[in-house]
Amino acid sequence: MPVLLDPAAAWPLDLLLKHVETDGLAWELEGGPMPRIAGLGTLQAAGPLEISFLSSARYGAQLQQTRAGAVVVSPEAAQALREGARAGTQPSFVRIMTAQPYLLFARLAQWFDRQRQGGLSPGVHPTAQVAPDVRLGEDVCVGPHVVIEAGVEIGAGARIGAGCAVGAGSRIGAGTLLYPRVVLYHGVVLGERVIVHSGAVIGADGFGFAPDAMAAARGDAGRWVKIPQLGGVRIGNDVEIGANTTVDRGALDDTVIEDGVKLDDQIMVAHNVHIGAHTAIAACVGIAGSTHIGARCMIGGAAMIGGHLSIPDDTQISAATPVPSTIDKPGRYTGLYPLAEHADWQRNAAVIGQLGALRRRLRSLERQAEAEGAAGAD
Amino acid sequence: MPVLLDPAAAWPLDLLLKHVETDGLAWELEGGPMPRIAGLGTLQAAGPLEISFLSSARYGAQLQQTRAGAVVVSPEAAQALREGARAGTQPSFVRIMTAQPYLLFARLAQWFDRQRQGGLSPGVHPTAQVAPDVRLGEDVCVGPHVVIEAGVEIGAGARIGAGCAVGAGSRIGAGTLLYPRVVLYHGVVLGERVIVHSGAVIGADGFGFAPDAMAAARGDAGRWVKIPQLGGVRIGNDVEIGANTTVDRGALDDTVIEDGVKLDDQIMVAHNVHIGAHTAIAACVGIAGSTHIGARCMIGGAAMIGGHLSIPDDTQISAATPVPSTIDKPGRYTGLYPLAEHADWQRNAAVIGQLGALRRRLRSLERQAEAEGAAGAD
Amino acid sequence: MPVLLDPAAAWPLDLLLKHVETDGLAWELEGGPMPRIAGLGTLQAAGPLEISFLSSARYGAQLQQTRAGAVVVSPEAAQALREGARAGTQPSFVRIMTAQPYLLFARLAQWFDRQRQGGLSPGVHPTAQVAPDVRLGEDVCVGPHVVIEAGVEIGAGARIGAGCAVGAGSRIGAGTLLYPRVVLYHGVVLGERVIVHSGAVIGADGFGFAPDAMAAARGDAGRWVKIPQLGGVRIGNDVEIGANTTVDRGALDDTVIEDGVKLDDQIMVAHNVHIGAHTAIAACVGIAGSTHIGARCMIGGAAMIGGHLSIPDDTQISAATPVPSTIDKPGRYTGLYPLAEHADWQRNAAVIGQLGALRRRLRSLERQAEAEGAAGAD
Repeated sequence: MPVLLDPAAAWPLDLLLKHVETDGLAWELEGGPMPRIAGLGTLQAAGPLEISFLSSARYGAQLQQTRAGAVVVSPEAAQALREGARAGTQPSFVRIMTAQPYLLFARLAQWFDRQRQGGLSPGVHPTAQVAPDVRLGEDVCVGPHVVIEAGVEIGAGARIGAGCAVGAGSRIGAGTLLYPRVVLYHGVVLGERVIVHSGAVIGADGFGFAPDAMAAARGDAGRWVKIPQLGGVRIGNDVEIGANTTVDRGALDDTVIEDGVKLDDQIMVAHNVHIGAHTAIAACVGIAGSTHIGARCMIGGAAMIGGHLSIPDDTQISAATPVPSTIDKPGRYTGLYPLAEHADWQRNAAVIGQLGALRRRLRSLERQAEAEGAAGAD
Repeated sequence: MPVLLDPAAAWPLDLLLKHVETDGLAWELEGGPMPRIAGLGTLQAAGPLEISFLSSARYGAQLQQTRAGAVVVSPEAAQALREGARAGTQPSFVRIMTAQPYLLFARLAQWFDRQRQGGLSPGVHPTAQVAPDVRLGEDVCVGPHVVIEAGVEIGAGARIGAGCAVGAGSRIGAGTLLYPRVVLYHGVVLGERVIVHSGAVIGADGFGFAPDAMAAARGDAGRWVKIPQLGGVRIGNDVEIGANTTVDRGALDDTVIEDGVKLDDQIMVAHNVHIGAHTAIAACVGIAGSTHIGARCMIGGAAMIGGHLSIPDDTQISAATPVPSTIDKPGRYTGLYPLAEHADWQRNAAVIGQLGALRRRLRSLERQAEAEGAAGAD
Repeated sequence: MPVLLDPAAAWPLDLLLKHVETDGLAWELEGGPMPRIAGLGTLQAAGPLEISFLSSARYGAQLQQTRAGAVVVSPEAAQALREGARAGTQPSFVRIMTAQPYLLFARLAQWFDRQRQGGLSPGVHPTAQVAPDVRLGEDVCVGPHVVIEAGVEIGAGARIGAGCAVGAGSRIGAGTLLYPRVVLYHGVVLGERVIVHSGAVIGADGFGFAPDAMAAARGDAGRWVKIPQLGGVRIGNDVEIGANTTVDRGALDDTVIEDGVKLDDQIMVAHNVHIGAHTAIAACVGIAGSTHIGARCMIGGAAMIGGHLSIPDDTQISAATPVPSTIDKPGRYTGLYPLAEHADWQRNAAVIGQLGALRRRLRSLERQAEAEGAAGAD
């Protein structure tokens, strides 16, 4: 773990907590003396200058051994510690009690992250190539070797990392951050406070081809005619897009990602997909064209969502699950061949191709047994 | 949807159709008055200045409601509209009748796409680094921050987007387009009219390692020795390669992609793979080393093709299907665990590991029933 | 296959073998006259100026037809050739006998690869942006349009390809090679002799979000709060990382890849994953967060490894296999729906959802048969 603050610059815990943006989340300190804090750590790794947190009751044992200076805990965990103390086991750390320990820890992490961030200098780096008519808001940072084409608008405080390419007519909202080597094609719209990680490509052509019937008629079978992808990509506010993820532009209408969607690395969003607000999608997921995913869904890593289908709001798809057709009602869905030792897998997989026949044979035995039962009942 | 032409610059439909390259595809207009056209749209989204198209009879209902100025339709759909008109339902749009509506629509889209394209200025951008011996054809565009190493040849009219890197001795055919941030390693050959999308990497080393038996003999087990990948990559004419797709160079012979192949985003083509002409492969497909895929195949998204196998011409592989061994005859192939609600999946998946045993138990019951049947027949 | 040496510059085989670094691996020549060698090739493609090798007895037939000037063979294959010669079939090529033919061939390939490599010129290209406090070892090459932020250290002989971005405080070991357009975020540590292929992104944020309970309490349900990823990435010596692979930084602790690990293209390594030494992972594999993979494992392409689980040393996972939970003992594991023609697949897959019921029906028939058997025995 990197050092987050120089230990000499450590803050007293109570002072630090007053500077952290907790967005109305209440907390209370218990125990003492008040430690000085220079960073964050897991229960196992944290030292006396660091805050840790108890995310789940099943890590309670780690709480006994932690060397952390302070730990964020739920009221229930704090109560258990108080009872332990009455029984003679005094905790060695200060408790930060709150109804949402993980959320408070996230806010602490955000505070430390802000202390660390040097990042880009404000202004346009002299090696960047910015078209004359580009409109840049206040305090926009444009890094080295960036290319920004004509007609682009970039909102206040946005940061464009080294080597990004922004295509003609795209719009980037205020406070948005592009890490190095992101590519936006022409006509891509990003909202405010969006984060796009390196290597992501937004607005490449959707995969659209028509069979070339004229060439086929001339005896040149199999050729494809490209359907130019004339739509764009619209991405809402507070979206995060992972490294090397691709979001293709629409064929005619736009590909749309609503507010607050979180996409991990190496996700593929095909043309004319629509992803509802606050849906979170883990890495390596593919979503085929024109599919509509609802709001607040959670999609596990490497799930593969077919095209031209829809998934309702608040649906969960398990990791590595293919979704070949529309899902009608919310719930959790899975489709995953179970893991086995290879020899066992071979033995059982050989039966998969006979399942229809097996069912018929079973039915035939059942009929025979029924007939005998009936005969026996005569 | 972006505006494709300024409405003030809209073209009369009949004039526009005469300017569109239809490659011999016949069309006929029906109805009037002749609308002015500034763009294209889906049946639902198109307005009076736009052309739409009816791709399938099942969207016939949308035809009743469309506000499009003109619609591309098949002769059968036109006939149905004529009958509807006789029955009193006059269509509000001009019909563009043709035997291949989708193909004609593709040609219209290409025409609009050409009006839009500003793109790169001709010539070599002053920030590009081009080795002295590089040979550039007429009207080649080389964007900002491009790097082109020694011995490269680039054909007439090719466009190399911002920040591309082209390795030593590579050859790029006439009319080929590299979007920003494409990487070609050394010794990569691209044909004519190839399109490569951003983030694609062509010619990286194939994954070749030999166990280091000498290190193992010294007690240092498990080490790998790299097999340098000395082959190249050869890509034919009219190929399209999607964003963040990777095509590795061959170990000794070349990796080969024939004419007209279409690869979507995030596809992985390993060393010494051979893909036949006009095969189309959807996103997130992986193809392991030395596999041979025939011509005119269609491979669904996230299919995973094993190594050292072959797939015949004109074969279809369903999405999310693993192909572990050679396929002997063309057809459509699938291998995909069916989706279910998680609790149902759990109940049924638990039986997968017992399928071999289940089959044996069924066989044993059948023998018993046969024996009884035989006994009963005595 | 590219020409590796100009034929006019071909080396006599025995002289060449003396220049190849064989790391103690013994070899012996048999037959003659001694050919001149200018390259390497497969048995089928190699000509008289090239060396080939026999990797497996099953390619023995190709040995009869090869035009190669020399072939690397095992002692057993050499013996078989001697017997053939006594029977009258004199091999047309010189034999290079060794206990490890593939390993010797790898060393030959490395020698040829070194002859070819021109690559980057030493020194810092004038277009590179290098922060003033960056420390560069001897003979470091920094290519065009590279950006290196403050506090970075780069070891002797490392080569940083065109357009790479290296984040603040990262460390790159001696002899390490970054191909063009690699991105390292801040605080990434790479060991010595590491190879990173183009488009790889190391150190992007792990996928960490907490439900925003405060927003939910205000009626704004479903929002996520970002957990800043404060850990780093540590990568050992002799690691290779494929094109467009992503390795995310840890949440608090580091993501760790040990010495000698080989990662193919388009692999996703999530935050806080730990991969043991000399493990080799084929393309398109995803590894979810906090998973621990042992040493010397081999993981097939497109396998999908779940989060918070562990895989022991020396385990093999088949291609396209999902691993949803911890594996307790080494072995080979598979979980893969078998491929079938689509119509067969449909018929059989329809039974998957009834497997639990099928098992119950079978059990019920068995009970009935037992009862009858018992009755019959009365």
